[in-house]
Amino acid sequence: MNEQSNKRKKLGQQPGAVIFTGERKVERVGIHYLEYNEHDCKEQELDNQSITAFHDPVEEFVQWYDVRGLHDTELIKEFGRVFSIHPLALEDIADTTQRPKLDEYPDGILITIRALHFDAKNPKMSYEHLAIYLGDGYVVSFQESGTDLFARVRDRITQMKGRIRRMEADYLAYALMDTIVDRYYLIIDDLELVIEGLEETILQNPDKEIKGEIHNLKQESLIARRSVSPLREVVSSFDRLGNGIVKDDTMVYIRDLRDHVAQVTELIETSRDMFNSLHDLYLSEISFRMNNVMQVLTIMSTIFIPLSFLTGLYGMNFQNMPELGWRNGYFLLLGLMGVMILVMLWFFRRKRWL
Amino acid sequence: MNEQSNKRKKLGQQPGAVIFTGERKVERVGIHYLEYNEHDCKEQELDNQSITAFHDPVEEFVQWYDVRGLHDTELIKEFGRVFSIHPLALEDIADTTQRPKLDEYPDGILITIRALHFDAKNPKMSYEHLAIYLGDGYVVSFQESGTDLFARVRDRITQMKGRIRRMEADYLAYALMDTIVDRYYLIIDDLELVIEGLEETILQNPDKEIKGEIHNLKQESLIARRSVSPLREVVSSFDRLGNGIVKDDTMVYIRDLRDHVAQVTELIETSRDMFNSLHDLYLSEISFRMNNVMQVLTIMSTIFIPLSFLTGLYGMNFQNMPELGWRNGYFLLLGLMGVMILVMLWFFRRKRWL
Amino acid sequence: MNEQSNKRKKLGQQPGAVIFTGERKVERVGIHYLEYNEHDCKEQELDNQSITAFHDPVEEFVQWYDVRGLHDTELIKEFGRVFSIHPLALEDIADTTQRPKLDEYPDGILITIRALHFDAKNPKMSYEHLAIYLGDGYVVSFQESGTDLFARVRDRITQMKGRIRRMEADYLAYALMDTIVDRYYLIIDDLELVIEGLEETILQNPDKEIKGEIHNLKQESLIARRSVSPLREVVSSFDRLGNGIVKDDTMVYIRDLRDHVAQVTELIETSRDMFNSLHDLYLSEISFRMNNVMQVLTIMSTIFIPLSFLTGLYGMNFQNMPELGWRNGYFLLLGLMGVMILVMLWFFRRKRWL
Amino acid sequence: MNEQSNKRKKLGQQPGAVIFTGERKVERVGIHYLEYNEHDCKEQELDNQSITAFHDPVEEFVQWYDVRGLHDTELIKEFGRVFSIHPLALEDIADTTQRPKLDEYPDGILITIRALHFDAKNPKMSYEHLAIYLGDGYVVSFQESGTDLFARVRDRITQMKGRIRRMEADYLAYALMDTIVDRYYLIIDDLELVIEGLEETILQNPDKEIKGEIHNLKQESLIARRSVSPLREVVSSFDRLGNGIVKDDTMVYIRDLRDHVAQVTELIETSRDMFNSLHDLYLSEISFRMNNVMQVLTIMSTIFIPLSFLTGLYGMNFQNMPELGWRNGYFLLLGLMGVMILVMLWFFRRKRWL
Amino acid sequence: MNEQSNKRKKLGQQPGAVIFTGERKVERVGIHYLEYNEHDCKEQELDNQSITAFHDPVEEFVQWYDVRGLHDTELIKEFGRVFSIHPLALEDIADTTQRPKLDEYPDGILITIRALHFDAKNPKMSYEHLAIYLGDGYVVSFQESGTDLFARVRDRITQMKGRIRRMEADYLAYALMDTIVDRYYLIIDDLELVIEGLEETILQNPDKEIKGEIHNLKQESLIARRSVSPLREVVSSFDRLGNGIVKDDTMVYIRDLRDHVAQVTELIETSRDMFNSLHDLYLSEISFRMNNVMQVLTIMSTIFIPLSFLTGLYGMNFQNMPELGWRNGYFLLLGLMGVMILVMLWFFRRKRWL
Repeated sequence: MNEQSNKRKKLGQQPGAVIFTGERKVERVGIHYLEYNEHDCKEQELDNQSITAFHDPVEEFVQWYDVRGLHDTELIKEFGRVFSIHPLALEDIADTTQRPKLDEYPDGILITIRALHFDAKNPKMSYEHLAIYLGDGYVVSFQESGTDLFARVRDRITQMKGRIRRMEADYLAYALMDTIVDRYYLIIDDLELVIEGLEETILQNPDKEIKGEIHNLKQESLIARRSVSPLREVVSSFDRLGNGIVKDDTMVYIRDLRDHVAQVTELIETSRDMFNSLHDLYLSEISFRMNNVMQVLTIMSTIFIPLSFLTGLYGMNFQNMPELGWRNGYFLLLGLMGVMILVMLWFFRRKRWL
Repeated sequence: MNEQSNKRKKLGQQPGAVIFTGERKVERVGIHYLEYNEHDCKEQELDNQSITAFHDPVEEFVQWYDVRGLHDTELIKEFGRVFSIHPLALEDIADTTQRPKLDEYPDGILITIRALHFDAKNPKMSYEHLAIYLGDGYVVSFQESGTDLFARVRDRITQMKGRIRRMEADYLAYALMDTIVDRYYLIIDDLELVIEGLEETILQNPDKEIKGEIHNLKQESLIARRSVSPLREVVSSFDRLGNGIVKDDTMVYIRDLRDHVAQVTELIETSRDMFNSLHDLYLSEISFRMNNVMQVLTIMSTIFIPLSFLTGLYGMNFQNMPELGWRNGYFLLLGLMGVMILVMLWFFRRKRWL
Repeated sequence: MNEQSNKRKKLGQQPGAVIFTGERKVERVGIHYLEYNEHDCKEQELDNQSITAFHDPVEEFVQWYDVRGLHDTELIKEFGRVFSIHPLALEDIADTTQRPKLDEYPDGILITIRALHFDAKNPKMSYEHLAIYLGDGYVVSFQESGTDLFARVRDRITQMKGRIRRMEADYLAYALMDTIVDRYYLIIDDLELVIEGLEETILQNPDKEIKGEIHNLKQESLIARRSVSPLREVVSSFDRLGNGIVKDDTMVYIRDLRDHVAQVTELIETSRDMFNSLHDLYLSEISFRMNNVMQVLTIMSTIFIPLSFLTGLYGMNFQNMPELGWRNGYFLLLGLMGVMILVMLWFFRRKRWL
Repeated sequence: MNEQSNKRKKLGQQPGAVIFTGERKVERVGIHYLEYNEHDCKEQELDNQSITAFHDPVEEFVQWYDVRGLHDTELIKEFGRVFSIHPLALEDIADTTQRPKLDEYPDGILITIRALHFDAKNPKMSYEHLAIYLGDGYVVSFQESGTDLFARVRDRITQMKGRIRRMEADYLAYALMDTIVDRYYLIIDDLELVIEGLEETILQNPDKEIKGEIHNLKQESLIARRSVSPLREVVSSFDRLGNGIVKDDTMVYIRDLRDHVAQVTELIETSRDMFNSLHDLYLSEISFRMNNVMQVLTIMSTIFIPLSFLTGLYGMNFQNMPELGWRNGYFLLLGLMGVMILVMLWFFRRKRWL
Repeated sequence: MNEQSNKRKKLGQQPGAVIFTGERKVERVGIHYLEYNEHDCKEQELDNQSITAFHDPVEEFVQWYDVRGLHDTELIKEFGRVFSIHPLALEDIADTTQRPKLDEYPDGILITIRALHFDAKNPKMSYEHLAIYLGDGYVVSFQESGTDLFARVRDRITQMKGRIRRMEADYLAYALMDTIVDRYYLIIDDLELVIEGLEETILQNPDKEIKGEIHNLKQESLIARRSVSPLREVVSSFDRLGNGIVKDDTMVYIRDLRDHVAQVTELIETSRDMFNSLHDLYLSEISFRMNNVMQVLTIMSTIFIPLSFLTGLYGMNFQNMPELGWRNGYFLLLGLMGVMILVMLWFFRRKRWL
């Protein structure tokens, strides 16, 4: 929600300025380096100084630099220098408020994407800014925090699962995106579980907190929508690329990814309908309950108000009230009251209030 | 609703991995084989081993392999080997959460589609994942469960009804899709019957359960929408096919199918409007009833509250209350009360509350 | 609403099967034959056997076969044979649930369209399926019922009104469509009158029935929308025709028709907004009335509850209650009560409840 | 709202029939003739007979025939003959229910447009049908009523303001349209003033009439929308004209007009949102007020009901009620009642009802 | 909101008339002149007379005329003369109600844009009309008020921050637009803070004012939307420019700007959803509170009404009421009443009203 607050840091800066707009999520920026081809695979932790040494494209190898932590803008600029990345691309890498997009540059492609985190307990949606720079034979990925979102891809490389070791750098970039998109399914799954829980609660016992919760979740799902919907455009952009960095072999996988993105967007849109429906359900429930409450009140009042009037009547102190002297006056009145109660009950029954 | 839960099984897997994401709905996977041309028709149950033997395209014959049950991923891979189906296609066949789509491969077309089941009693919408792989001269269809959704098509072939025996494999694929789309009409029909029942209930006697039911059905219809709406795109994709597997003769039928899909989508969209209208009706009804309840309460209270005040007044024990000693005090008061009741009744009549 | 129920009859049938899906609306199918050119005009009633005799295109004449009643599928097939109409076209002619569409065949064009009937008293919307087959030099029109929807066109031909006698068969087809579209204006007109009546009723005296009526009309207008909206596409399809059956001279009229269809669609869309607005008005009215009812109740209660408390107080039987012995106790209390009433009235006046 | 009622007059007529569908708004049709070029300008009132005399294109002059009143269909047909205007164009000129459109004919362009009138007092929206026929060197404009909507354009010509005298007939047609579009701003302005007034009223004192007014204005704004929204298409159509009647010099002004039309459409769309928001505000206000009313009732009842119970208790006539004999029983009870009142007040204060 | 009121001033004027439609916001129009290239930079305040002297394009220098105040239409016309700006462009510069647009002229590009001001205290949205005319080698910017919105750009030039000194006039125009778009983030940020504040207030203590505030903010956000949404089109228009004034070097920055505009538009759209959600929350809250109020009333009434009836019963003065003479009659009754209270409490507990 405070996306804009962070954006504020950048206002008035010249375009292309590399400014970190997020909150520092890791102590020290780590660089994980991985170099592989079909036959071989080498893993290494780099420090800031050693990037330059590695910058030469290694023949027949795919190079993957995985940077964790974005607050060190100097390091980002260093990558910019070593791989000659365009200043605007560097700006987008460091800007954690950047919405997902794909930008093509002469030597590479920058993809920014958002990983979603959803805390179903609280419930609170947050996102993490990721940037994937795909060059010729190498990929540089930037993660905002230290939790390794790409662990499964790394495992598939090191353990030689699937075809990733036989494919090139563009497939690696695809695999990274695919991992993030796959995570969205989990988020939506959790979201729907929360919705189902709310439904239950509303129908059982709509309490004070639930209004706020529905409202909250609606806002949270807006965040998810904001993060996911631009992805559709990102994935379609692959078709219009002209610098030959993404090969035709990989395009069939990209098309598969597009399919997933479409499905996720649709699921998120559906969840919006679900929230509106939840609100409708809540209002129905409250109205229904109020109606019930009112019926109880009305039944009680309507039965006893005339009876009380009668007791009041014969509680008056007029000296000349013949009925009071009747021998069975009291019992006649009791009988009359009984009849009145029965008439009322029949009336309410007919109106289906009972 | 737990579409995503199953999707979970696939997370982190490499793309192209053939993973069954559904629940096992049949004990043993069955393969029904049918081979026909205009003059001849042969039916046979195959087991896993015998596919290979049959894989050669039989001259002048259309071959239809109908697989029932998807949990046996080895069998799917075997089909992949025998008919050289692309790994991504195999993945989509086994993935029961796959949304409807059409993918073109060099040697064939994969169509995934969802058959809907609607239990009007409960009411509960569910869907079954189907995959139709159309190659040159053969069709392989995959059904999730053992209930044979394609029975009518099979009958038309074996009993030589209509033109199906004179047409080729692409027409068979069309006929299978057409059968599924036709079923949607039944679903929508049932849905509208349920809606009509709800309308009746709301206007007669809106009880506690109905709120939940409306809400439920809305969610269920979202599932239907999610299953049907991508079909529009699927059917339009036929126009853009380039591998010559679908012949011009069949295209006129595909256009007819497109028409049906458009109609179905429209009907489902309309049912959404109907649910919203139902909710409006429910709220109106509840408001109207509450209004009625309140009127009864108000009428009773407004008439008797002043009267009770009067009885209370003359029930006081002040020593000096001249009226109490009047000879006709009591009867004067009774008369006054009668007049007050009449005035009140006239007032409510004028306000149209009576 | 039972469009689907009828559709059911067709399920599982092979495509192209000519099956009547409606209810039989006429006893006997009648065929009205009309043959005309600028100078001459001949009218005749045909029976089933005599179609063949007439099937030869008459030089320089426009032939119009107007079939009333659709349940005789044999007759439709007979037309199919005589004029060599495509089986799918025959299927669409007999299928009364067919949504409006235009299909081009090598020798002709099939237009299906729906005539709306609106019973403003009830109110109930229904539609009638019509099919117009335009061939080279002849038109075959199919009406579901015996009420002659095309009477005015027939009059224009026989009485030589306007240019119709100077134009060819394509103009006749246009004129038939135009007649149906013109009828929609009447429907919408009636619908708006009903809406205005409802507005009046809601503001005057919203009773029990009106909720159901609004809801009903909404559903009915959905039927109208479903019937009219596909027409837009139908009319645009004329631009894409390639078989030369529709001449350029007629296209300027088709464009005019398109204009009308656009206007009608817009009017129907507007009527949807009007229904939603009606529902809003109803809810407002009910809320407003409830508010009024509550105010009356609250005013009465608030004034009399404290007074009644006081009377109760001095109706107690404590032996030691000094006020009861005061000479003017009763009159002092009456005065106090008068003051309290005035204060309350001032309070409610200030709150604008009075 | 009675647009359709008038449309009725035309039903069953052959297309191209020139039928006046409006109400006669002027006694006698007047024709104002204006002929000008950069140097000269001649003004004249024509009668029906004299059109023919003037029909020859005057070299180097722009001719403007301004017809006020549309009920004289003979005159319209006369124009048709003199300037050889297509019958369908004549029909559209006379049809006051015609929605705004642009039609291109070989020798000219017909633009139909609607001038809006809004009576903010009542409030009531109405429109006037206008037609502008632009030929080579001349413009014929048709106004429904006698109030001269084009007065300002006329002044600009006669008083040589701006560039109009230096431009040709197409610029004149543009200027006429521009005048009408400019008027829309006034309408929207008035509409927004009315909306603001309603807001004020709702927040101050939502009375019985306001529900109906909001509803009414919504309907009226639908009329405005229906009149304005097709204009967008009209203005874009200029780009697709092919008969060379509109020159490139004028196109830059047309583009400016398109901009205005876009803005007006947007403003009208916004006013829709405003009406919905007004309705929401109304409902909020009513709910809020009801809540207040209920709180007053509940507070009064909750405080006095238990107290009244106590007075009733000690008003009973049991022979054996020890408290009644206590010396200070009455005063103890009064004290107890005081404490109860304080507790209640504290409770309501805590619930923020006071 | 009074955008239209100002527009009124222009009605009936010929197109191209330069008319100031706003309110005079500065005393005296000021012209700030800045001339720079990579090596040099000269700043100067101009008066009306001195523009002409400066109008020659200075070789190798970018010239920036920053005009503050728009009411001096003579000055605008003077600029028009000196830089030969098209009359329609001059009109748009002076028209403070002009919606954002980009117009291409042979020698230049006119961009009109709106700067938003949001007063979060009040809260009130207002906008300021800005015009940027980009010619060959120079930029003329027009601000409505004296508050210098372009101060940061000026600083970047004079202090040589970023690349602006190395770029040409088109980059300067971009930088000015970018500054305005960046400001939108602040507005949206403030808007979201206000929304969060409202949420808090609604859930804590929804008072009388809040309805009006939500409604107000909704209207204000409509103003923001109206100002921002046309920008999307403006930025895309750059792609279609044909006069070579915007260089390819700058286009990459324009694409970045497009990205920001897309994000801002999306954020504003989201804020609309948020307002609707706020209104829903408000209604939920009010309903919930009313329900609570009613429960309290009903509980109190339901418990005490029967008890009061009993006290009334034994307060009657019939001579023959055996219970009154019972020794423990009073105590038995008290016991009975206690039991009744317990039963009621149990009943309400079961209904979860307590």
